[in-house]
Amino acid sequence: MLQSSLPPAPLFLPRHSSSSSPATWSPRHNSKRRSPRSCLVQEEPDRAVEPEREPPPRRVSTQLNRWSRARSIRSGRRIDWPALRKKTAPPPSPAPPPSSPPSEAGVRPAVAGEGTEGDGEDDESELMEGKAIYMVSDGTGWTAEHSVNAALGQFEHCLVDRICPVNTHLFSGVEDMDRLMEIIKQAAKEGALLLYTLADPDMAEYAKDACKVWGVPSADILRPITEAIATHLDVAPSGLPRGAAGRSAPLSAEYFKRIEAIDFTIKQDDGAKPQNLDHAHIVLVGVSRTGKTPLSIYLAQKGYKVANVPIVMGVDLPKTLFEINQEKIFGLTINPVILQTIRKARAKSLGFGSETRSNYSEMDHVRAELEYANKIFTQNPTWPVIEVTGKAIEETAAVVVRMYHDRRQKCLMPRISKRFVVLSGHMR
Amino acid sequence: MLQSSLPPAPLFLPRHSSSSSPATWSPRHNSKRRSPRSCLVQEEPDRAVEPEREPPPRRVSTQLNRWSRARSIRSGRRIDWPALRKKTAPPPSPAPPPSSPPSEAGVRPAVAGEGTEGDGEDDESELMEGKAIYMVSDGTGWTAEHSVNAALGQFEHCLVDRICPVNTHLFSGVEDMDRLMEIIKQAAKEGALLLYTLADPDMAEYAKDACKVWGVPSADILRPITEAIATHLDVAPSGLPRGAAGRSAPLSAEYFKRIEAIDFTIKQDDGAKPQNLDHAHIVLVGVSRTGKTPLSIYLAQKGYKVANVPIVMGVDLPKTLFEINQEKIFGLTINPVILQTIRKARAKSLGFGSETRSNYSEMDHVRAELEYANKIFTQNPTWPVIEVTGKAIEETAAVVVRMYHDRRQKCLMPRISKRFVVLSGHMR
Repeated sequence: MLQSSLPPAPLFLPRHSSSSSPATWSPRHNSKRRSPRSCLVQEEPDRAVEPEREPPPRRVSTQLNRWSRARSIRSGRRIDWPALRKKTAPPPSPAPPPSSPPSEAGVRPAVAGEGTEGDGEDDESELMEGKAIYMVSDGTGWTAEHSVNAALGQFEHCLVDRICPVNTHLFSGVEDMDRLMEIIKQAAKEGALLLYTLADPDMAEYAKDACKVWGVPSADILRPITEAIATHLDVAPSGLPRGAAGRSAPLSAEYFKRIEAIDFTIKQDDGAKPQNLDHAHIVLVGVSRTGKTPLSIYLAQKGYKVANVPIVMGVDLPKTLFEINQEKIFGLTINPVILQTIRKARAKSLGFGSETRSNYSEMDHVRAELEYANKIFTQNPTWPVIEVTGKAIEETAAVVVRMYHDRRQKCLMPRISKRFVVLSGHMR
Repeated sequence: MLQSSLPPAPLFLPRHSSSSSPATWSPRHNSKRRSPRSCLVQEEPDRAVEPEREPPPRRVSTQLNRWSRARSIRSGRRIDWPALRKKTAPPPSPAPPPSSPPSEAGVRPAVAGEGTEGDGEDDESELMEGKAIYMVSDGTGWTAEHSVNAALGQFEHCLVDRICPVNTHLFSGVEDMDRLMEIIKQAAKEGALLLYTLADPDMAEYAKDACKVWGVPSADILRPITEAIATHLDVAPSGLPRGAAGRSAPLSAEYFKRIEAIDFTIKQDDGAKPQNLDHAHIVLVGVSRTGKTPLSIYLAQKGYKVANVPIVMGVDLPKTLFEINQEKIFGLTINPVILQTIRKARAKSLGFGSETRSNYSEMDHVRAELEYANKIFTQNPTWPVIEVTGKAIEETAAVVVRMYHDRRQKCLMPRISKRFVVLSGHMR
């Protein structure tokens, strides 16, 4: 019902969503959605341990082995890598220099499922195969999700072309042992790896032991950091998951500043209210589809008030842009081929008003507009120009934030510093 | 210069920013901004190791000790806790039930610095004291930041009222050994804990060894997860940091869907374009300042198209709201006392147009509007009503996402499933 209410699937539909066949379906790896069977937990310990999974000792050695191999790769030494040759394609060729038009292959690989909650229909077939990673949290689960996503980035060479697809399953707000046990048993049945962030040390201990009993490989995501901090501060962790009674309310200074930043940034989107540019921490300037809006929003989430100003050929930039502190202005540029791809996609997709205009995604126009933008950037040498081609929003954000702080610190060892100190009592 | 261009400091200014006196300043802990001295790295190994820091062996035992203590706390046993009694205030009293007006103290503790990049003037004095945590990454550093923030949540009882303030320092994009070494030496001088996410195994190894040499306590944030996944997939990690040549471009399906979701969500903010409600994955309904906008944006970042519809007394809700799939609508409610606090703050702060109207933050009006909202919620029993009092945006988001997927899965073990599989070749 929800699906029917959704717009037609965008053209970025990953290839395999059509190619993956039900023939590959296997009950043990079945984790497809909306089917009670897929979620059912059966109580058969004998079926719990996967015969083909390596026993712990070999796991450890293999894994150390792998690390030394990774090290060899980095050092450029040739190594024998049967596992990789057997299971994965050669790692994608190095990314092209920003300026040169990238080759077709490997330029814009696609991930299915990730953030595509709207595409349930696809997910259903997509989630039928692949290795499972369970993420279990007694809190929001966002830390587990974030860390696992980051770690999976280290295995792109294996994920390429579905050589070893991975399905992650997030179980958040897991607060009682029974639910935890159910999940661990299901992980055993699915042959899943279980990664957890359990603030409650009893739960963490329980998860560790239960996973051992059920032969589920597992790791505690936050414990190493928490222990290091506990030692550093010489204070024990509270053992309370986020939102638990005893944990304090949201940290209000940050809370209000984030909200203020988000409100500001939304109202300043796409060149709106140029008279407010002065109030922004960061001002982004670039042609349409250089990612100004998602970048602005990402930065706003981190507490920065961001305004973005579009460069449109034949339209003058707001006068205020040149009157404010020029050190907070950042230019965005992008490879024309990629920009055209994005604009074509954009035009064909939902197509919000003005952006679907005819010449919007024509190469001549794209090139001309980028040249126009570069001319403006040359006339304003104070603005750093960031090449966003092939960069994720997070990467560009990291560059902007680093430059922003470097410029303000003017010191030999720039860093982004924050202070954590909870204050009791009400706000003034 | 940037500062002067900023709006007057908001009223959420944390208490201590005025109370912290230069007398507490100490060169070794000095990490204040915009002062070259604060960032200078001096080459004096003899000054590198902090005398008062515990030697490794004791650290370990102390830390295990702390865990057992944490476990005791959870189990309710009374324990002797000299370290805590000496250094920290009693943990904040349990949070009040959502319905009851919370006590003044501990309701909205404040964090300075976090996300307050605009308040450099405060930071300068705030960053003069406290324990330092260095976060080092050869990528964006966001994973390190996210994990450390999450882990610090376990030490709120220690951060309360600046008993042991903590300053974090993020060093991202650290790609060469020299810079890494500089940072480690500075960490030694500041007596900092060094937490790192270094994809390059050589860099990670180097960090570990150098920290040992310089007596800097350290931990590898992602390694346990990466090793667990490597073993699970039987594939070595690439050892390439995000954005490095060889790492693939942003995962486009997700990239485009996120951008689409963000674009959609921004355009649907605050009840705009009710005719599009049908296209949303999630629709949020609530009175002003229940956090609809930041929540929408947070969810949009995760790929959900979100529309939010404000409940304003005397203004009819859009007809379409009742025509779309009711299962994707979520109501937000909040404790009146807290809401008034937020609205007063809001009204006094930058004060965006309509929201500064007189009765906006008056208790009678606040109560009446919340009752009006609750009446609507009662008339629409399909909408889950989420109590946001004392919840961070991330927490409410976790609840919404969980419910959203549970409703779609209709299975015994709901989970949020995603598929990771990189596809080479261009998009269709």
